[in-house]
Amino acid sequence: MLKFDKEKKVNSVKGALALRPEIEKVIDKIQEEGFDAIYFMGIGGTWASSMQVEVYMRGKSNIPVFVENAAEYLTTGNKRITDKSVVIFSSVTGTTQEMVDAIKVVKELGARVLAFIDIKGTVLEKDADYCICFPENEQLKFYMVANRLMYNNGDFPDYDEYNMEMEASLAEALVDVEIKADDFAQEFAAAKYEYVKQHPDMPHYFVGAGNQYGSTYSYAMCYWEEQMWIRTKSISAPEFFHGMLEVIEAETPVILFMGEDEQRVTAQRVADFLPRVCRNYVIIDSKDYELKGISEKYRGSISHLVTHAVTNRIDVHMEKELCHPLQIRRYYRQFDY
Amino acid sequence: MLKFDKEKKVNSVKGALALRPEIEKVIDKIQEEGFDAIYFMGIGGTWASSMQVEVYMRGKSNIPVFVENAAEYLTTGNKRITDKSVVIFSSVTGTTQEMVDAIKVVKELGARVLAFIDIKGTVLEKDADYCICFPENEQLKFYMVANRLMYNNGDFPDYDEYNMEMEASLAEALVDVEIKADDFAQEFAAAKYEYVKQHPDMPHYFVGAGNQYGSTYSYAMCYWEEQMWIRTKSISAPEFFHGMLEVIEAETPVILFMGEDEQRVTAQRVADFLPRVCRNYVIIDSKDYELKGISEKYRGSISHLVTHAVTNRIDVHMEKELCHPLQIRRYYRQFDY
Repeated sequence: MLKFDKEKKVNSVKGALALRPEIEKVIDKIQEEGFDAIYFMGIGGTWASSMQVEVYMRGKSNIPVFVENAAEYLTTGNKRITDKSVVIFSSVTGTTQEMVDAIKVVKELGARVLAFIDIKGTVLEKDADYCICFPENEQLKFYMVANRLMYNNGDFPDYDEYNMEMEASLAEALVDVEIKADDFAQEFAAAKYEYVKQHPDMPHYFVGAGNQYGSTYSYAMCYWEEQMWIRTKSISAPEFFHGMLEVIEAETPVILFMGEDEQRVTAQRVADFLPRVCRNYVIIDSKDYELKGISEKYRGSISHLVTHAVTNRIDVHMEKELCHPLQIRRYYRQFDY
Repeated sequence: MLKFDKEKKVNSVKGALALRPEIEKVIDKIQEEGFDAIYFMGIGGTWASSMQVEVYMRGKSNIPVFVENAAEYLTTGNKRITDKSVVIFSSVTGTTQEMVDAIKVVKELGARVLAFIDIKGTVLEKDADYCICFPENEQLKFYMVANRLMYNNGDFPDYDEYNMEMEASLAEALVDVEIKADDFAQEFAAAKYEYVKQHPDMPHYFVGAGNQYGSTYSYAMCYWEEQMWIRTKSISAPEFFHGMLEVIEAETPVILFMGEDEQRVTAQRVADFLPRVCRNYVIIDSKDYELKGISEKYRGSISHLVTHAVTNRIDVHMEKELCHPLQIRRYYRQFDY
């Protein structure tokens, strides 16, 4: 398989899951001390990850957990964020300007800050009360925070059973998804290359709901737009029916992500609608993957990781088909703006 | 001027502003009774309006005001919405299915409901504790709610002065915007027709921030996509720099909305960036309009109404240029889905 290091991937997920004692210690302390609210703060892809963890908790727990966009916080502000609040964020580089500036403001306010940063020694690490350094697996880290918060709040009685399953099976299960998805991904990428060559202007429509929405938004923007320079539009499945449906014609390219959380029914509605008006759609459904060792009842909590494993393979093959190295940027960090 | 009834427009805004005593009575009662939080609930365009009022209050008041999407509420739920919560919504038809279903759920929960509905006698009216029936002006109604909430909370000491100005000048000021914008709108629409004819696949990129973001999202989706069947992508100005910028080339069509609230600086950053990489952008800026009788300090609170007045004129001319009546739909409410 192209650009696929199975052992590295397994170790990455296992390493993230092994952060659990460290995460639990921080979260237990935060909950013992009390808080008025918890804000997952981000920008771009990390804002999208914040949306994923908020929607995960929204229906399960009354813990006041909200999402804040760093650039909006720096301008509009948020009067509800106080010295009793907790701000949680993730940063790959530890240097994203909006995050550096926003964390300064919340620290001056007296809020507590928990940072997940991929590498040690960055400016953002210094500003955080708690910093957990480990590469990648942003969504997994956020969900581990969410799970502990909910466990301590009495919302997650089978927390231990859940973690036992994840720690025993998640890493291998996700690698199996990548292996199973590879043929599909290769064909998909080859077909997309042909389509993009013939229709360079056409946006590719990405639809997702629930914990798939954040990943749909960031997959369209941070991968296809930013890394591949292909036009996209992303929309949540419920919103699809309130305007966007009208521009879907027989040949319009649509990619629907389906997960297994409570909002699956809204994605299903899109899946039922699409074949009536469109021939050119693809459904990427976490249900198509076995996830050995993971109970049915827990699949919804990781279905965004499953579809992400599928898109990992798409990205590898798109890079090859497009002859476009995914690390190059036209403008981003190329000059001051 | 094409399809322009000045008197009707003035009376519409004046009629909405005259709802103030009725709105104040409801809001005062709600605040006297107390609440754990207020949720502006919507879907599609009404969800976008909810985002506009939330961001308006976020930096000014610590009143717990949040946005809820009706379809997400019906599936994911929200454990923080309780019998002590207040749900506020607006509906043109009073029949949108997701809203009808969601309001049933919050009523069963015991939450109080304030409805703004354009017409009397709908099913949604019956389910509301308070219903204010008056056509159009959704954002204005929501902002009147916000202003009263903030006044009662001590966040808006010059409430009376503000209302005096709005009631004396807003209706005429907005009509003047439409008159001033008409030539621009006509030229813009003619140019867009030519562009769309030559580039039917190309999405038109709409960018906005702050109280412009909700209107940017709904203008792209509910007007261009739903009513004109033209492809769009909307993005908030801060997010523009975290991925989407990479697909902007010299001829990519971008429309930037600029308002005068706290997030203007983020839109200004886009305005400064665009000319360096793009020739085909248009800026619609509330600052370009006089707004006679409105103080500088209040302009930010209505700049989404100003840009909306500009797009009103664009819509009229687009309808003519495209030869596409804006009330026709391909799919929406045409068959069951």
